[in-house]
Order: sequence, then C-alpha cells, then structure tokens
Amino acid sequence: MDVIQAVQWTPAGDAVRIIDQRQLPGAYVERDLRTVEEVCEAIRTLSVRGAPAIGICGAMGLVAALEVDADLSLEAFRACAAAAARRIAAARPTAVNLPWAMERMARTAGLPATSVHELLTRLRAEASAILAEDRAMCDAIGAHGLALVPDGARVLTHCNAGALATGGIGTALAPLYCAVARGRRVQVLADETRPLLQGARLTAWELTRAGIEVTVIADGAAASLMRAGAIDLCLVGADRIAANGDVANKIGTYAVAIAARHHGIPLYVAAPSSTIDPCAADGSAIVIEERGREELAMANGRVVVPAGALVRNPAFDLTPASLVTAIVTEAGVWRAPYRFGASSGAPPPG
Amino acid sequence: MDVIQAVQWTPAGDAVRIIDQRQLPGAYVERDLRTVEEVCEAIRTLSVRGAPAIGICGAMGLVAALEVDADLSLEAFRACAAAAARRIAAARPTAVNLPWAMERMARTAGLPATSVHELLTRLRAEASAILAEDRAMCDAIGAHGLALVPDGARVLTHCNAGALATGGIGTALAPLYCAVARGRRVQVLADETRPLLQGARLTAWELTRAGIEVTVIADGAAASLMRAGAIDLCLVGADRIAANGDVANKIGTYAVAIAARHHGIPLYVAAPSSTIDPCAADGSAIVIEERGREELAMANGRVVVPAGALVRNPAFDLTPASLVTAIVTEAGVWRAPYRFGASSGAPPPG
Repeated sequence: MDVIQAVQWTPAGDAVRIIDQRQLPGAYVERDLRTVEEVCEAIRTLSVRGAPAIGICGAMGLVAALEVDADLSLEAFRACAAAAARRIAAARPTAVNLPWAMERMARTAGLPATSVHELLTRLRAEASAILAEDRAMCDAIGAHGLALVPDGARVLTHCNAGALATGGIGTALAPLYCAVARGRRVQVLADETRPLLQGARLTAWELTRAGIEVTVIADGAAASLMRAGAIDLCLVGADRIAANGDVANKIGTYAVAIAARHHGIPLYVAAPSSTIDPCAADGSAIVIEERGREELAMANGRVVVPAGALVRNPAFDLTPASLVTAIVTEAGVWRAPYRFGASSGAPPPG
Repeated sequence: MDVIQAVQWTPAGDAVRIIDQRQLPGAYVERDLRTVEEVCEAIRTLSVRGAPAIGICGAMGLVAALEVDADLSLEAFRACAAAAARRIAAARPTAVNLPWAMERMARTAGLPATSVHELLTRLRAEASAILAEDRAMCDAIGAHGLALVPDGARVLTHCNAGALATGGIGTALAPLYCAVARGRRVQVLADETRPLLQGARLTAWELTRAGIEVTVIADGAAASLMRAGAIDLCLVGADRIAANGDVANKIGTYAVAIAARHHGIPLYVAAPSSTIDPCAADGSAIVIEERGREELAMANGRVVVPAGALVRNPAFDLTPASLVTAIVTEAGVWRAPYRFGASSGAPPPG
C-alpha cells in the first residue's frame, strides 16, 4: 500500500519538504521551506495543513530556518530561536499541536549547551523526534481503531485526517489503512468538505493512491446517505479536543455528528493525544478560527457570491462529547464520560 | 423593492425569455428560447431552474416552438404539440410542475378548434395563465407565510426558492419579501448549496438586489450556527411533496431538517400546490435525480476530485414529514399530520 509522506527533511537536511496541498489533486508539487516566513506562509495558506502535520512542519522548519543563525552567540541564537518559535506558533490559531510543538522546540533551545552547533543538533533531533513520534502515534491509532472497522465497512469521513495531515498514516484514516492492510474490504465516502474541498482533493487522492475505493459526495448529501443505509460508521479527526471530550474539527463535522446520532450510526474521532487540550475544560474554551471571505466567494477565479452579500467562514466547529461515540488516541479507545484532565489515562500533550 | 422576473415573454411574444442562471452572479445574461431543443437544453443544464419556473418555461417555450408549425393541418399540429410537450416534460425528472404544466398544455392542444391559429392562441393564453397563476401563488404563499417571519427574524434558507425559481416573488423567499415590504427587519443566512451553489450565486444575488441582508455560509456551517443561537427558523422550498408531507428538495435540505429538529428550530417548507403529488403516497415514490460527476469533480475548469475516485451526486433528498414544522402553500399553512390526497384541503395540482 502506497501511503504518502506529507512532511519530511530534504535529502540534504537543509529544509522541510512538504507536498503543496493547495495544488492537489491536479498537480503533485513538493515545496522546500527554509525560512520562518516560508514556514508561516505555508501553514497560513494551507499548503501544509492538518493539526499534526503543521506541528511537525513548524518544528522542522524552525531548525531549517535557524541554520543561518549558526554563527551567532549562544545567547543571541537562543533569543532568535525563541522569537522564531513564537512567530511560527502564531501562524494558525485553532490546533494545539503547533504551539505544543513550538514550545517543545523553544524548551530545547533553552537547554544548557556549550555551542550553537550543539543546540542546533539537539533542535534537529527534537524535530526529528516529533516526526518519528507522530508516525508511531498514527500507527498506534490505526492499531487501536482497527476494532472499529469491520470487514465490509462503509465509512464516512469529513475533511482530511489522513497521511496528508500527519507525519505518518493519518489519524481518522489510520484505522482504514490498517484494516485494508489486514485484508478487510473498506469503502469510504468522503465529504468534499467546503470550502477548501480537503475531502474531494486530499482524502480522495491519498486513498485512491493507496488503492482504497472512495466516493466523493457533497457535504449536504451525507445525511440522506445515512438515511438510505449506505453508511455504517463515521470516522473523523480533530483539531483540538477539550478535557470533557468536546471536539473541535473542520466545519461540517458537527452536522455529521447530529445526523449520525439521528440515524443511530457511531461517530468516532481519531486524534493523537497532542490534540487534547487539558486546559480547555470544554469546547467553549476553544478559539474557532474565522477565515476570509474569498474561500467561499471565489471558485477557481470565478465570483460565486455577489459583492453585496456577506460571508461567514468559520473554519471549525465544535461537536459536544455527547455526540461522540468514542475517541481513539495512540493510547487506546476512550468512551464517554471523557475526562482528559491531568489525572486521565490519556497523556496530556507535552 | 426590486424583485427579479425570471421567466417572461419577449416583447414580440415569439420566445420565452429567461435569465441564464448559470452565469449569475458574475454576469446578467438573458436568453430567448424558441425551439423545443433550446427549451430542453435550458432546463437540463439549469439555465432555468426551480420547479415552478421550469414548468412555466416549458409551457411558454412550447408555444414559441409551435409557431413554426402554424401551417400544418390541425391533426398534424396536434400531434406535433403532443410530441413536443412530452419531450419537454422529460427534460428533468424530479419536479412535478414540469409534467403538470406540459400535461395542461397537451390537454389544451387537444381541445376542439377550427384552426391551428385558434389552437395556438389558446395555447399562448394557457401558458400565460400558468405564469399569472404562479405569480398569484407566490403572492399568496408570501401572505400566508408572513405570520411565520417575525420582526428581527434570522432565517436560514437552502438552495434558491426565490424569484429566480418561479414566475413571481418565489416560494421560500416570498414570506421574506412580504415581511420586508411590511417594514420587518429580516436577516437571511443562505447555505451556499453545493454542488451548484444556488444559494451563494442566486439567493444571495436576488436578496442583495432587493436590499435584504444576506450572509452566505458553507452548507456544513448551518448546524453550528444553530447551536450558536444565530438562526431562528429555516424556510426552504420543495421540488415535490408527497401526499403524507414528505418533501423532496435540493440535496442538503434533509441535513438542515435534522439539525433544526436537534436544536428545536422550526423548519418551514413553502411551495405551490402544484408541487404536491397526490399520486406519491410518501417520499419513497419520488424519483431522485442523480446528476453527473463533473458538478462535484470540477470547480470552474479545475479538477478537484482525482480521476480514480468515484462521485455520487444526488440532486435532491427526502425530508420526512415528521421533521417538517409546517408547509405553506397558496391555500394556507398546513401542519402535521399532512394529508394531501384527493380529499385534502390543499388542491391537488391541475
């Protein structure tokens, strides 16, 4: 099975190499990011997206960007590293993985060291560890989620929580990749996921590439396909999960959750523990990013909303824990009542 | 208030004039249809759309097309008229208005007459009557629906059941136009309505033109805006209504209905009686049109679904009567249990 690698070092190790996801599926274009500006721009414009992937990209990109500061004093280098980590952490607001990864890098930059070179080596190792841990997390999520995906399952997913969103085989798609690897037959229904069409463009692309049957539908069609008995389970990712199990994920997830509950279909959320924010007691503490008008108002250069009309474009929504059948992390499968505080079995991020 | 006229005779009366709705909101283009082929193509490609509007367009277009047959024998003319009416009736499957209007025209073509000229005059009068009746129906729906739209109402609508879908001021939008005409403040949230964006392109355009505030949202955002308390009521049209009140309407309506019920928000359906199909005991008797791949797979010339992925594109869905708070027709406001059979207070079409 050919599962894509979304974020990696360049062969020379001088940059973080991403697949430009804005250009999929029409063109496969890799981009090498070497500066803080390039990293922030790639995250902000969704060239790289998916909560785990942007955390990894931020960490690796920070290392690439700091190479030019190798001849600074240790003190000046630390200050540069901290400032750069803060800038990258602020590139997008909703996912917790990005500030989590950048704080981890900032902490590394503050460790005792005798030279900038030593610090750079440690930072590179830390970024590589974040990538490796993410790959392992994806594999573990896939292994734990396997039990939820029986042979013949017809699975609805929303947005892209696949390999393209992580350093490994994805979160929501990981159990599907694992099920197929074990010889189970799986059919995927992918919500196209307006406005940016991550389901149509990305989920359909990576599943097709891996040889898994996928059917793209309009977001508004999911409920009627549930009513028609064409969907056995829903499997989505998460951008942030509150301590009580409320889930922030791509706009439209909440509508899927309501429809699934209405039809008695389980809704599973799969995400690494780094997505859990124990500081957010519930979903109301999660900031929902509002994005620009043009994502809805323009379709590949054509105006589709008249100038006099307003646009609201929240990028995420909140699904209350009461609608979530189970949450799959690398540590296992969690069911309500969710208690992801400090005393929970699920390790808090960091 | 400047409410658009979607279907009308050309000044010379030799063609039916429509607004090419595929080109809105970027360009305002009128098209004059004079042949059966042009009428069928305009209906099939959604240049003209909306269940009432395509019935009117079919009837008026039939008259324009039959002008060239004026020198046939009466018998040959009747045969031509019947064949043309059948062809136009088959241009799209789901809405009942089109076959209803064409059957009405075919019946007129079969009436006793002494000349083709006399028959043509009767056919023109019949088509004009269908238009005039539709305008009156829209006004009556607006008047009856007014009670459902209080001052300050924040109204979610889906697709376009407005002036652009009818010969008059629309069905779902008619109560809003009437409310605003009475000085009530109304805010409209318009689902963009994938895949063809009738909400973004058409509803937003005609409401903006009429000076009514409208905000376009992704279909997947409606549920979370309900949860946020930003929507007071939902008002949608219908393409066909079964005798028991099950409603076939644009794909995504059912998802709106489930979310509205989940949040205790009323869902009103507004449609002329000609939309009611007493031969369909319930929604299962209604044929749901499946449309082509390219509506989802292409975005203004750009491929957004990879070639290896499948696409399902049902144009409509069914909302069971149990989720419909009330149905507004030109005859009044109907509430469950709906019994639109022959003995119902709502006049069956024809």
